[in-house]
Amino acid sequence: MEKLNIGVIGCGFMGRTHSNAYRQAPKFFDTTYQPILKAVCARNEERVKAFADNWGYESYETDWRKLIERDDIDAIDIVAPNHVHKEMAIAAAEAGKMVLCEKPLGLNPAESQEMVDAVEKAGVPNMVWYNYRFVPAIALAKNLVDSGKLGRIFHYRVNFLQDWTIDPNVPQGGEGLWRLDVNSAGSGVTGDLLAHSIDTAMWINGPIESITAMTETFIKERLHQETGKVEKVGIDDACAFLARFKNGSMAVFESTRYARGHTAFYRFEINGENASVSWELPDLHRLSYFDQNDDSAVRGWRNIHVSNNDGGHPYMENWWVPGIVIGFEHSFIHGVYQFLKSLEGGDHERQFPTFSDAMETDKICAAILESSKSQTWQNING
Amino acid sequence: MEKLNIGVIGCGFMGRTHSNAYRQAPKFFDTTYQPILKAVCARNEERVKAFADNWGYESYETDWRKLIERDDIDAIDIVAPNHVHKEMAIAAAEAGKMVLCEKPLGLNPAESQEMVDAVEKAGVPNMVWYNYRFVPAIALAKNLVDSGKLGRIFHYRVNFLQDWTIDPNVPQGGEGLWRLDVNSAGSGVTGDLLAHSIDTAMWINGPIESITAMTETFIKERLHQETGKVEKVGIDDACAFLARFKNGSMAVFESTRYARGHTAFYRFEINGENASVSWELPDLHRLSYFDQNDDSAVRGWRNIHVSNNDGGHPYMENWWVPGIVIGFEHSFIHGVYQFLKSLEGGDHERQFPTFSDAMETDKICAAILESSKSQTWQNING
Amino acid sequence: MEKLNIGVIGCGFMGRTHSNAYRQAPKFFDTTYQPILKAVCARNEERVKAFADNWGYESYETDWRKLIERDDIDAIDIVAPNHVHKEMAIAAAEAGKMVLCEKPLGLNPAESQEMVDAVEKAGVPNMVWYNYRFVPAIALAKNLVDSGKLGRIFHYRVNFLQDWTIDPNVPQGGEGLWRLDVNSAGSGVTGDLLAHSIDTAMWINGPIESITAMTETFIKERLHQETGKVEKVGIDDACAFLARFKNGSMAVFESTRYARGHTAFYRFEINGENASVSWELPDLHRLSYFDQNDDSAVRGWRNIHVSNNDGGHPYMENWWVPGIVIGFEHSFIHGVYQFLKSLEGGDHERQFPTFSDAMETDKICAAILESSKSQTWQNING
Amino acid sequence: MEKLNIGVIGCGFMGRTHSNAYRQAPKFFDTTYQPILKAVCARNEERVKAFADNWGYESYETDWRKLIERDDIDAIDIVAPNHVHKEMAIAAAEAGKMVLCEKPLGLNPAESQEMVDAVEKAGVPNMVWYNYRFVPAIALAKNLVDSGKLGRIFHYRVNFLQDWTIDPNVPQGGEGLWRLDVNSAGSGVTGDLLAHSIDTAMWINGPIESITAMTETFIKERLHQETGKVEKVGIDDACAFLARFKNGSMAVFESTRYARGHTAFYRFEINGENASVSWELPDLHRLSYFDQNDDSAVRGWRNIHVSNNDGGHPYMENWWVPGIVIGFEHSFIHGVYQFLKSLEGGDHERQFPTFSDAMETDKICAAILESSKSQTWQNING
Repeated sequence: MEKLNIGVIGCGFMGRTHSNAYRQAPKFFDTTYQPILKAVCARNEERVKAFADNWGYESYETDWRKLIERDDIDAIDIVAPNHVHKEMAIAAAEAGKMVLCEKPLGLNPAESQEMVDAVEKAGVPNMVWYNYRFVPAIALAKNLVDSGKLGRIFHYRVNFLQDWTIDPNVPQGGEGLWRLDVNSAGSGVTGDLLAHSIDTAMWINGPIESITAMTETFIKERLHQETGKVEKVGIDDACAFLARFKNGSMAVFESTRYARGHTAFYRFEINGENASVSWELPDLHRLSYFDQNDDSAVRGWRNIHVSNNDGGHPYMENWWVPGIVIGFEHSFIHGVYQFLKSLEGGDHERQFPTFSDAMETDKICAAILESSKSQTWQNING
Repeated sequence: MEKLNIGVIGCGFMGRTHSNAYRQAPKFFDTTYQPILKAVCARNEERVKAFADNWGYESYETDWRKLIERDDIDAIDIVAPNHVHKEMAIAAAEAGKMVLCEKPLGLNPAESQEMVDAVEKAGVPNMVWYNYRFVPAIALAKNLVDSGKLGRIFHYRVNFLQDWTIDPNVPQGGEGLWRLDVNSAGSGVTGDLLAHSIDTAMWINGPIESITAMTETFIKERLHQETGKVEKVGIDDACAFLARFKNGSMAVFESTRYARGHTAFYRFEINGENASVSWELPDLHRLSYFDQNDDSAVRGWRNIHVSNNDGGHPYMENWWVPGIVIGFEHSFIHGVYQFLKSLEGGDHERQFPTFSDAMETDKICAAILESSKSQTWQNING
Repeated sequence: MEKLNIGVIGCGFMGRTHSNAYRQAPKFFDTTYQPILKAVCARNEERVKAFADNWGYESYETDWRKLIERDDIDAIDIVAPNHVHKEMAIAAAEAGKMVLCEKPLGLNPAESQEMVDAVEKAGVPNMVWYNYRFVPAIALAKNLVDSGKLGRIFHYRVNFLQDWTIDPNVPQGGEGLWRLDVNSAGSGVTGDLLAHSIDTAMWINGPIESITAMTETFIKERLHQETGKVEKVGIDDACAFLARFKNGSMAVFESTRYARGHTAFYRFEINGENASVSWELPDLHRLSYFDQNDDSAVRGWRNIHVSNNDGGHPYMENWWVPGIVIGFEHSFIHGVYQFLKSLEGGDHERQFPTFSDAMETDKICAAILESSKSQTWQNING
Repeated sequence: MEKLNIGVIGCGFMGRTHSNAYRQAPKFFDTTYQPILKAVCARNEERVKAFADNWGYESYETDWRKLIERDDIDAIDIVAPNHVHKEMAIAAAEAGKMVLCEKPLGLNPAESQEMVDAVEKAGVPNMVWYNYRFVPAIALAKNLVDSGKLGRIFHYRVNFLQDWTIDPNVPQGGEGLWRLDVNSAGSGVTGDLLAHSIDTAMWINGPIESITAMTETFIKERLHQETGKVEKVGIDDACAFLARFKNGSMAVFESTRYARGHTAFYRFEINGENASVSWELPDLHRLSYFDQNDDSAVRGWRNIHVSNNDGGHPYMENWWVPGIVIGFEHSFIHGVYQFLKSLEGGDHERQFPTFSDAMETDKICAAILESSKSQTWQNING
């Protein structure tokens, strides 16, 4: 077993999920490398110290540049707002560290390209945290499509719905709210929720060729928590787009933070010639599957409880017993496992997106914002 | 096409469902006999006249004995409270009429036996209206069990839950409320709801050999609508029993009118060695089916939308197009179809219970009430 | 009670649903006018005769012009392929008949305008059969939105998915298949399924202002049943569009006949500031409702079984008892009721679309097809 | 923060869940005491060593008596087969250790009584691991009942269904299979699954007064893994019982390992005068709730996604963000939290059963087995 010293930048919600994942992964999955919680970094010393104590980090920093400079760190995990991803990732790569970065990669494709260039030049392992790939039911969906069971794909449809910003009194910017500030986030639901949807979609269904989009900002002004002033809201509150995939299938994507009743509702469905699959986040351990080849008298949508999966599932056999569900946090544990496994070399197929892969998602996000502005179809990659 | 002149006794909720069924059946099903709404009978002339007008009966009567005496009536359909079933059925049989009777048959097995004797002596076609047999999803469940897909049956479980008598101000007896009066109904949920459950169960899973039961009357006294006095409630408000079937399977049956949130919730599930099925009344067009022989990677409960059934279903091809659901009223239409079909002779397998079949259910209901009183197990038929 | 003599043109699936509706409506709903099945018309004499016999029509015709000329017909109901709607409707109006027409109105807005002009010039009552308005759960959804419970509407999303044309061996044109022939149908899913979706949406959520669309024809050539040749398919197999409503809400509409597993899946969801509702055709008696004002400890999507609705529902009290579901065919019965009720005058609010209303849907369908071709946003009505 | 040194006996499935719980609890919940994984004990040295390494135990033992003798252990957690609970618990209590014990307590009430006597004599904190109490949705159900929202309780119904022993080739006894050996387990589903159901039921709905039961052993003989011989099976494969609670409500309990399609299906429903709740293990984060006081137009079962619960839920605020589900393993983490919290004194209400509480469940299990044998009703405590 080899130790892999991790330095995490950020200690919010995602900082917690990553910290937990590093702790838990080695208890459930066999890997050559074992992550060590070497240091965590955040600007507020009191807070980062408490965080380090709680999660068992050996040390903490308040200046991320110092963290990156440390010789005892092998991998930097960036769990900070989007607008600082680029600077941190490039510095980490230049320091020869492996780099893991929360999604999306940069604020825009230009930033993302710089980040890709940096990790490629440095030749360091890198990953972007599109964690939905590591949800057991989604991994099963991917396997089913890859196996050919669905046949030719006709349709891909997605909703990613939330409702946490309907109240106009929710401020923008500041602690826990940087996702509402266009300067920190780059965009609203497009970079936050659609980026996840697009990553999953391309992972399963291949490249997107063209799109046309519509965005909306329902609440035009909000108090900015840092300036103390009511300011124009720069992000998209909601976004929907139509798409064509390279494989000839059609898609509809929709995302919003104004869907009352949906705290975190990510749903996708794929319709193929012979079979269909669908999945919904609120019951993340279930996959719905319809197979036209079933005997017609008893044909119907199957409700697969993925905990039961004994057919060579990539994750479930490492957990408890059949029938017993795991939670959302486990997707991050699987992500850590996949990253560690990739370091071993061998023929384990990579399941996560590198910076280079993730930049494709950023390009589509940029095309969405451009399409919405210009009201035109956009071709991706030309 | 031959005409079959029907005389219906009763014009309440069930009178409406039967009238509708006689009208609709010939429009959707091919049968040699065509039911004619010859006459309807009820005591209140104003009401029965309006009912006859609405449903297109050729005539009406206010005295059921007169109806039975009429030469132009071929079949008597008894849709009246339980305590008058016996007298009407015997008179009808003695007059040489076919007899259809709402369930349960008599107030107790002794009454039922007299009724069976009467129709058998008269040699007249007869049927008891256990209409759940004619629900498309239940017919499919029966076919699956008969086909052997489930293998050895281990478990049968049933709930039949309602909530309409929780309010202590609901009176007993009188118009629309005879089901709460033990003199009219014979029992409470046992003869009303469990009788349905038992008929379905024995139709699908064979004879019941022994039972032990528990009943309860939650509201001890209610205003009697006819006497104008607060009187002791004589019916069982709730009843549950354990049972053993002849095929070795175990069963649990439960019924109540005190299950808040369940207006009319009839659910059953059958677990076999290789497969299971379950069904619930609120979505009566769906059958859940689990098949252990499915590939383990995609095994799960199948949600069969019975409207889609194109595998030789006994009813669905006569209705609309796949995907389009029918309602509860259609079970009665199917009942009429099955009765008419049985008159044709030929090899069409009888799908409805005769008086003789239905008496088996009455015996079990009587054993339930006895078991509850004596707190002992009861063997059926011995 | 006054008689209203109906002449129906067409005896396919929809001919059956309408015939059934005229028979059943007066048994369950009180109206001044009573529909009489006076005559049915179709070209094939053997078939139309059998149809008339089955449904109890007093007579039949094989030439629709003759039907329209008959003095004993008050209302013409057009249940024929789309390309003959215009000619029939105009002739009927000119003959002073009331006109009911299956949806969509004309093959294109120009045809529709001629039809509107004809009925308005003749001053005859008219209706287009957008029957989903008469589904009890959808009527409830409309009431909830109108009541203000949802508050400001942010989102409207729709899918209308089928799977019956995935097989490339399904021919186009001819008996039962005219919906695949662009000359008879005008378009594919746009006029067939999206037209329904658009009518429901505008009924509930008001006018649509602009759209951008994408269509696809997955199977490019099919055997034409009438010519006997393999011909280019002219219809859209699938269509999705983005829309903005006048009330500021955003919408996504999608429809296809290539969604494996969905025989007839029409779903819509509306997200408002305070509450949301959603509905799905396979369980048409259920409405999902989420109310943010519920106590947070027990807040969740409510599964409303519309059969239970005792709060002044426009249809359910006329049927059976709470807990008992009706089917899809009943939407047409409600449509007949609404049409008859509107003839009475009085203050009963019209619930169905007139020709003039339905033309708005045709305009949007035309804009969709144009947008798909030109890849541009289209403004409706300017 | 004070350290609490834990010694765990057992390293099977439950050994893993407990070990994980001790590690995770302090990361998410604030408690004065912090559990230290001091030692784990199992007979197979190779296996216990690997287990200790994986989970970070400071040491291991192969003789449980040695573990109990160690001065550096504060609490003994017994995660071993049922037949050794008594001896271990008494020894631990006599050594002055706190004792946590997997359920059920003893093999029978006599054993359980000895265990209760031992911990009470020693005056040591003690707990039995009925972990379903710590499932967030069940904790919410308990709160709702306690709050009076349901009003008078009429019905409690439970199923606990599994399907893992249908195959007659599953051996009894030995590694991982002691639950099939009556000598190790004491009983079959009664002590395994019904014990959980009974604990939950009495926690929420109060004492059970009387029961009548039926058990079955479907597969009469199985290979015994330790003796190598085919031997008679001594356990109950399935068990159902009727019950009356002290509060006047009626109950039906059923459990089996022969319900095809149910890997681990625990469902309960409680019907009260004003409201009802129900829950199912496969979607353990959902609680269904029906409230008669809702406006009738929008009344329906509410699907509460407990992750969203922001109304003072005892667990959910310590985890992630609304909308994000946790898993089954978390119930054990909550159990650790509750045990630690109880050591602090103060007014935190105890949420777990002590040995004394758990003995009540054992008495009911004994009454069930007796009732099944004698075919009689059994009164509990008298």
